[in-house]
Amino acid sequence: MKRRTVFFASDQTGITAETLGRSLLAQFESMQFRQVTLPFISTLDKAKEAVRRINLTAQVEGSTPVVFATFAQRDLRDAVAQCNGLFLDFFDAFIGPLEQAFDTRSSHRSGRTHGGIADESYQRRIDAMNYALAADDGINIRNYEKADVILIGVSRTGKTPTCLYLALHYGIYAANYPLTDENFENGDLPSSLKKVNSKLFGLTIDPEHLRQIRIERRPDSRYASIQQISFELREAMALYRRYGIPWLETTNISVEEISSTIMDRMELERGVAAR
Amino acid sequence: MKRRTVFFASDQTGITAETLGRSLLAQFESMQFRQVTLPFISTLDKAKEAVRRINLTAQVEGSTPVVFATFAQRDLRDAVAQCNGLFLDFFDAFIGPLEQAFDTRSSHRSGRTHGGIADESYQRRIDAMNYALAADDGINIRNYEKADVILIGVSRTGKTPTCLYLALHYGIYAANYPLTDENFENGDLPSSLKKVNSKLFGLTIDPEHLRQIRIERRPDSRYASIQQISFELREAMALYRRYGIPWLETTNISVEEISSTIMDRMELERGVAAR
Repeated sequence: MKRRTVFFASDQTGITAETLGRSLLAQFESMQFRQVTLPFISTLDKAKEAVRRINLTAQVEGSTPVVFATFAQRDLRDAVAQCNGLFLDFFDAFIGPLEQAFDTRSSHRSGRTHGGIADESYQRRIDAMNYALAADDGINIRNYEKADVILIGVSRTGKTPTCLYLALHYGIYAANYPLTDENFENGDLPSSLKKVNSKLFGLTIDPEHLRQIRIERRPDSRYASIQQISFELREAMALYRRYGIPWLETTNISVEEISSTIMDRMELERGVAAR
Repeated sequence: MKRRTVFFASDQTGITAETLGRSLLAQFESMQFRQVTLPFISTLDKAKEAVRRINLTAQVEGSTPVVFATFAQRDLRDAVAQCNGLFLDFFDAFIGPLEQAFDTRSSHRSGRTHGGIADESYQRRIDAMNYALAADDGINIRNYEKADVILIGVSRTGKTPTCLYLALHYGIYAANYPLTDENFENGDLPSSLKKVNSKLFGLTIDPEHLRQIRIERRPDSRYASIQQISFELREAMALYRRYGIPWLETTNISVEEISSTIMDRMELERGVAAR
């Protein structure tokens, strides 16, 4: 398998460079990548040190490293671009066409990339995260009027990670409520949920997959038995159908995909805006 | 203020297009953007519907919308590229140079962008998130040997959001421990923390800023008084110095910046690799 070293270089956190680089590297499945992030290259000395590291890698490995870069500051960018790597500058490639389209000069200012702390949207994301923690696993059900969406499903279908992702990434207020034997014995949703029917979104999962997950938590338990799991999933699905609750099977999809599917199907407004 | 509509279009979640697009838009501070995400454009019919929406916007607003795109599938990309918007394709711009550098054809496969659920790194991120929840706010201190990093600091300095971000984004096992009057009366760290000294990272914050945050939670309390806050922050700092604990002031920086600074200063290995 071909191996190559890849650098993510930035005068900021490097998160944008990592995001861009990783989605591109994922298109080269036959290769293996060693990934090195060089964040906060905020002075010319640090830029020179970055060049030294990249050049050393090129020399030792005898192949050209790839450098995914996001520099807001021109002089730092130019300094790192001197390296013996394939230098792919994300801002450079797109800022020009955008300046033309907007008929506006870009600010080339650093520190704006990820929604600075002064942004309203930043505060909303932090508040949403605190909300998700306070409304996890069926606690604080009085607070459901604040929720943008309430995930329901049996234990270990992905409710908690999805709520936290929705909060941190999109600024969405997401609560979650676990469906348990108590609900299935009543054959009904609790009234606190029925009142907010339009906010409910159901998760389900393949029974055998869920069994594997639960076995890791509590082997040899009723909780992890295929009979119990099949019963719970069937009853949950009956409730989704009865109340017309949209649902998603989470077996083979990631938290990111679950989250953006929910955003799309529930027509949720992103609480995170660039401005 | 100039306004413009911006679309994020993808045959996947659109998260990469959003992240990259937003960091570009942030360079145009004098403008205002309406942002619309068009995710899961997975068929030619959906591609045509996307084109219809983009063209309608162009017509109604009388200006050219910008379309940030990440398409793994060529035919869908080509269909959406027909729209009357400025079509900026993130993959297109860089895949060519990378294919050349790697001397390898890219797979143009969709669904790989965000670390599919089958990836080891995906499972690590979910495990890290469960760990962060289980080791939040000083609970489960017996589990500190598992931690990659343990954040310490007084109440409301940003410990919990940072731990969750480190977990979800980087797959880092991050615990956190709140420093309270009990610690300051002893004038010492608990032995459970001293044993893992090399994993500790301290957070601090401007006293007046912290007062504002605490007032929102508990107005007119000792907890929110400037005397108490100044005392706590001073004592916390004394502990950081005494034990040589690296620390960061979080007053004006975002969770993303706090997290990547910690990654950098603690030399933490990213648990998330593209392959």
